[in-house]
Amino acid sequence: MTLYKAPLDDQRFALFDVLGAEAILTRLQGGSEHTRDLLDAVLEEAGKLSEQVLAPTNGPGDAEGCHYDKATQTVTTPKGFKEAFNAFAEGGWAGLTAKEKFGGQALPGVIGTATTELIQSGNLAWSLYPLLSEGACHAMELHGTEEQQNNYMKPIVEGRWTGTMCLTEPQAGSDLGLLKTRAEPNADGSYAITGTKIFISAGEHDLAENIVHLVLARLPDAPAGSRGISMFIVPKFKLNADGSLGARNGAAAGAIEHKMGIHACSTCVMNFDGAEGYLIGKPHKGLAAMFTMMNAARLSVGVQGLALAERAWQNSLNYARERLQGRALSGAKFPDKVADNLLVQPDVRRMLLTQRAFVEGSRALLLYTALQTDIESRSGDEAERKQAGELVAFMIPIAKGVVTELAQECTKEALQVYGGHGFIAENGMEQFVRDARIITLYEGTTGIQAADLLGRKILQLQGVGFKHFLEEISAFCKQHAADDALRTLIGPLAIATKQWGDLTLKLAQRVQANPEELGAAAVDYLWFSGYVTLAYFWARSVAAAEASTQSAAFKQAKRDTAAFYFARILPRTLMHQAAIEAGVATLPAID
Amino acid sequence: MTLYKAPLDDQRFALFDVLGAEAILTRLQGGSEHTRDLLDAVLEEAGKLSEQVLAPTNGPGDAEGCHYDKATQTVTTPKGFKEAFNAFAEGGWAGLTAKEKFGGQALPGVIGTATTELIQSGNLAWSLYPLLSEGACHAMELHGTEEQQNNYMKPIVEGRWTGTMCLTEPQAGSDLGLLKTRAEPNADGSYAITGTKIFISAGEHDLAENIVHLVLARLPDAPAGSRGISMFIVPKFKLNADGSLGARNGAAAGAIEHKMGIHACSTCVMNFDGAEGYLIGKPHKGLAAMFTMMNAARLSVGVQGLALAERAWQNSLNYARERLQGRALSGAKFPDKVADNLLVQPDVRRMLLTQRAFVEGSRALLLYTALQTDIESRSGDEAERKQAGELVAFMIPIAKGVVTELAQECTKEALQVYGGHGFIAENGMEQFVRDARIITLYEGTTGIQAADLLGRKILQLQGVGFKHFLEEISAFCKQHAADDALRTLIGPLAIATKQWGDLTLKLAQRVQANPEELGAAAVDYLWFSGYVTLAYFWARSVAAAEASTQSAAFKQAKRDTAAFYFARILPRTLMHQAAIEAGVATLPAID
Repeated sequence: MTLYKAPLDDQRFALFDVLGAEAILTRLQGGSEHTRDLLDAVLEEAGKLSEQVLAPTNGPGDAEGCHYDKATQTVTTPKGFKEAFNAFAEGGWAGLTAKEKFGGQALPGVIGTATTELIQSGNLAWSLYPLLSEGACHAMELHGTEEQQNNYMKPIVEGRWTGTMCLTEPQAGSDLGLLKTRAEPNADGSYAITGTKIFISAGEHDLAENIVHLVLARLPDAPAGSRGISMFIVPKFKLNADGSLGARNGAAAGAIEHKMGIHACSTCVMNFDGAEGYLIGKPHKGLAAMFTMMNAARLSVGVQGLALAERAWQNSLNYARERLQGRALSGAKFPDKVADNLLVQPDVRRMLLTQRAFVEGSRALLLYTALQTDIESRSGDEAERKQAGELVAFMIPIAKGVVTELAQECTKEALQVYGGHGFIAENGMEQFVRDARIITLYEGTTGIQAADLLGRKILQLQGVGFKHFLEEISAFCKQHAADDALRTLIGPLAIATKQWGDLTLKLAQRVQANPEELGAAAVDYLWFSGYVTLAYFWARSVAAAEASTQSAAFKQAKRDTAAFYFARILPRTLMHQAAIEAGVATLPAID
Repeated sequence: MTLYKAPLDDQRFALFDVLGAEAILTRLQGGSEHTRDLLDAVLEEAGKLSEQVLAPTNGPGDAEGCHYDKATQTVTTPKGFKEAFNAFAEGGWAGLTAKEKFGGQALPGVIGTATTELIQSGNLAWSLYPLLSEGACHAMELHGTEEQQNNYMKPIVEGRWTGTMCLTEPQAGSDLGLLKTRAEPNADGSYAITGTKIFISAGEHDLAENIVHLVLARLPDAPAGSRGISMFIVPKFKLNADGSLGARNGAAAGAIEHKMGIHACSTCVMNFDGAEGYLIGKPHKGLAAMFTMMNAARLSVGVQGLALAERAWQNSLNYARERLQGRALSGAKFPDKVADNLLVQPDVRRMLLTQRAFVEGSRALLLYTALQTDIESRSGDEAERKQAGELVAFMIPIAKGVVTELAQECTKEALQVYGGHGFIAENGMEQFVRDARIITLYEGTTGIQAADLLGRKILQLQGVGFKHFLEEISAFCKQHAADDALRTLIGPLAIATKQWGDLTLKLAQRVQANPEELGAAAVDYLWFSGYVTLAYFWARSVAAAEASTQSAAFKQAKRDTAAFYFARILPRTLMHQAAIEAGVATLPAID
């Protein structure tokens, strides 16, 4: 059984002190009501939902897992999941950021991201049911007809149904161009969808009345490869003319996967057997449509890394405080007790500070990115919208790729603090490690994120988002050059940022000479980018803390963690730089 | 279902080409028969046992786990485990390195280490039953009376019984001074042992007729803390006067733990309820006796890291070769297939070479250390014995601490190569990650290894083993200074080694001024030491390959992997150096 307390203080600090979210959100279109008071109240409620309803289901849900019944091809979720889903739906959380015309509350995306962190900390496996729904809604909002939106999206926003994204097939994962699922036109304008999809999160379950699958498939006249993919709406239950649930469609779960983690998430093999589907968007443009949702999905997976790391960190800190074992190197700190606690050990503090630096730094990074999505979609100024969009495109692979990888390290260190007790299931720490292992894989592996960052965002798009970000850091450094509290941070940040720029230019030249250099450098470049980005958010956090009305202890903790980050983590850029410079020559062919 | 092929070629290369084991072993006392031919044959047989008997039980054993029956307090191991144990016993593997007078074959420790790798790759969870037995035998050999050895050790060497080490209690893990189990003298000279031990691997099972527990407990007159601990033999079944099995003793498993991995290993809560026990060694000297076995146990856990990483690597390489997905960045490499395989991606090769560099480098490091244990125990030259002993003491925390941590990275990368398929249980990759997670925890956490290296082996013992090792590297660098094949390696190796020495001196001064600096630097110092040590073994491997009759492809692979290691891995020392230099000031107190 693990603890969880919603980290509202640090969320508010990141949102309002570091990012100045209130000033930005209230000036955006439709944002006049998005005051700090309102947003605070939303966070407060999400915190309660997470702490009281979701968090207690996390360990038991993992132990129980989902149940698949072969005869009926149905899935039963663990005890308490349906009640939690009802509470979620009744609280209006399913439509938190959806537009009002679809029944949503139209709250800013950045608040959606902050509440998603809380919900995912509560129970990651459970959170995937509504998360996938969000992606499906997003697709229907952007590409669906009004009728499709009314029929298939609104019930999801209302929390009555859920949605899925059906992309992967056994032979087609990172390379969706290989997919084979077919869509044959029916006489009535619908399509008969036939094929097998795998790894479909929330593909079948008992939480909602209906499930809306968004399925990628090929029309009969489709060109080969990724340019011949179309998207279809395939509901579990077809709709009668009046919108009520009709006959069962030919889309069913053939099995659920046994996985390393997120046991309570129903990960399905979905069999489409001439299932009735409806084309959404243009023929052969399904992959492009899918990519329009990719940013939101990838940002959410980055948030999963934060959510798991936050909860793991809370528990390891608590354990280090409570566990009495050994004595401080310089002599007993608690001589009246049988032993000192683990906190007296500098190496334990190293593990805790590593987690804290990554958790709080990642939070600022993710909320920053989410805030840019709000600016992108709702600023009244076209130039600002464009710039924010470019920043978002640039930040997403860092937010997804780096934060999910850092979550591996954080959950590992959190477990390590427990010693052998960390390996025991009932203590709950090993679940965080197992659950975290999926997030560097789905929604594009780390290698895919790295290739997106370096290949697409830097090279193809000529680093337009990168330039905005460098200018922002540069302006920040200038602004705080004489700031005493940031004296030890601004210098190293400026140097690291300059190295980042130089390295990028050099790399661009190398890749031009040999495209294989892209793959040889990409992941190390992603890491380099991530560590400099976090350094920036740590420096900003210290500046914001100093300027805030936070307590002296809060300010001190931010200063300490930033100092730790700059001294002990930022130097990791050195090894990534060496690896990047080594180039593809050090990765020779393997037969 | 995962593949496994015993890596006999690389083991032989490390043993005979890199380490020159034949010349050393045959000149040691009692070693005249330990020729390459004999040792080759032993490896061959161990490879067959692992591939044919153990490897097929690994996945199914994990899925099934152990069964605990509360009524009888007994544990049933998974299907096939007993048959495997019988094959192991009949093959004489239980007594491979035990002395002949105990019924063993007295083979060198380095061959024991090499065969242990094969067995642990076959099935780590299964391997723990005989592994713990080895530790118990070792304790009885060093500290038991002849009668105790005949009664309790011989049956283990013969493969009829197994043994355990009972140290940990709920409140006493890394800090054994806190243990509470009591030993009250009985009238007949035996003792009544009462207390609860946890995390007892192989504490109860159905593989053998009897189980011999070596238990740490306190005598009534024991001083407090770690100086009041004695060791006792506590058999599951007491012996009749003729040595046959008698009455059940009061030592039983109260539960088995549900763990992240090694599900098939019975990890028990052991309740001692006035169990009859026999003092082994001197009163109050139990902890010292336990420490005499620590080197062997820790080396074996290092080997577990190698064993898991080797098998994971074999599978990820195979998957990368078979899986068709995407195209090479510079254009299709297999235009006649639907897609190129993963091997064309430089980033996939990076993940594979990382594994290969750690696996083969660790193998050389571990076998080197094991060979020193043979020299330590059986050289005819006292000075050589002393030096080897000092080298062993120095290498053990690196062998355990670093290799187990590298196994985390290796198994993670191996899974990552599989993408989403790595997360699915039936593909077997996630089991390697779960199983590997225990090895940085038991037999002393990474933090404990690091404190042992820096605090004890470097500072307390004034770095005597370290000096031998530095001299050895220095001699190697001199010898190969003009060697064309090592041109790009010797320079960086010499520089890194010099940095290691300088850093050590600086650290020694800092710790003298403030003992807390030890804890602040230890884990980063362990890493620094590990990366330089592996660089040395990689340079030696290239030199040995060049001088050998290995195939051109084999030599090329060694050169490529060494070049990769030096260019992309060795620079990790930079970040650890920065962290070490940052000192304890960057790890401020946490309340």
